[in-house]
Amino acid sequence: MIAVLRIGHRIYRDKRATTHVALVARAFGADKIFIDTKDQKIESTISSVCSRFGGSFKIESGISPQKVLKQWSGIIAHLTMYGDEFNKTINKIDKDQNILIVVGAEKVPPYVYQMSDFNISVGNQPHSEIAALAIFLDRYTNGDWQKKRFDGKIEIVPSNKGKMVISRNEDKR
Amino acid sequence: MIAVLRIGHRIYRDKRATTHVALVARAFGADKIFIDTKDQKIESTISSVCSRFGGSFKIESGISPQKVLKQWSGIIAHLTMYGDEFNKTINKIDKDQNILIVVGAEKVPPYVYQMSDFNISVGNQPHSEIAALAIFLDRYTNGDWQKKRFDGKIEIVPSNKGKMVISRNEDKR
Repeated sequence: MIAVLRIGHRIYRDKRATTHVALVARAFGADKIFIDTKDQKIESTISSVCSRFGGSFKIESGISPQKVLKQWSGIIAHLTMYGDEFNKTINKIDKDQNILIVVGAEKVPPYVYQMSDFNISVGNQPHSEIAALAIFLDRYTNGDWQKKRFDGKIEIVPSNKGKMVISRNEDKR
Repeated sequence: MIAVLRIGHRIYRDKRATTHVALVARAFGADKIFIDTKDQKIESTISSVCSRFGGSFKIESGISPQKVLKQWSGIIAHLTMYGDEFNKTINKIDKDQNILIVVGAEKVPPYVYQMSDFNISVGNQPHSEIAALAIFLDRYTNGDWQKKRFDGKIEIVPSNKGKMVISRNEDKR
């Protein structure tokens, strides 16, 4: 199981960034996202994407990050620009275990660094936790997102010009 | 030269997403970002990152996207969930030419699809233009961001526990 823990979510300020984090988690192969602050709106946005575009991604907001970290059975990897070298570190992770990937909004409390098995930097330059999560999941899964089938009611057909969308009627499935 | 064109930027709503786009562009090897709407605040945020963390990344906001697209000498690649298959398409791009990578905020006007040489999907699931740009640049440059030196006043030293930061005094350089 691959899960993501989003820490430091502020409902107003982070609504779009956390939505991006959740959508990236889903699109790049995670099974679930935990968000510390309760946010009904993001829960319904993501659930709506799942019901239209398919897959079995889960979202849970309003949780204690310490509790999730403490109770996690498997690897904990915290993505931070202060972390250890990406390429070197990602190969040390035992992929047979569950993994919880932690991404912060701005400042991350020290206990996250301490409770993580790996503090990993997707580059040591300031950029984006959204990008870091995508690159991490891409490497961790060896690009499996490219083959993943979501079997949703809506499916986009790749096209070089224009938009091709298949909408499936639920009754006919 | 690798440049990014951000289209549909709304100063208030997109300030954080566009900042992420610009920082990802810089961290993953682009040389410049164009942003359609004039936004002095983002310009100074990004310039401040550049002056502290180094590199020669440029930002220009308040431009006509049609004009930038029309005058671009090189490849134009538009990242969109409706676009053509990522792996198949990225290999078709001539890397000896300049490239302009276009990322939209929400709806992108039809002329962008038409004026682009490639409309490319980093997966056909809804996620994030920030993630799409990172994955695209990672593949396009064969992961060169991992070796890139920025020689900034501030440098983060990779570490598995805690934060290690080198601050160089400008006068001593």
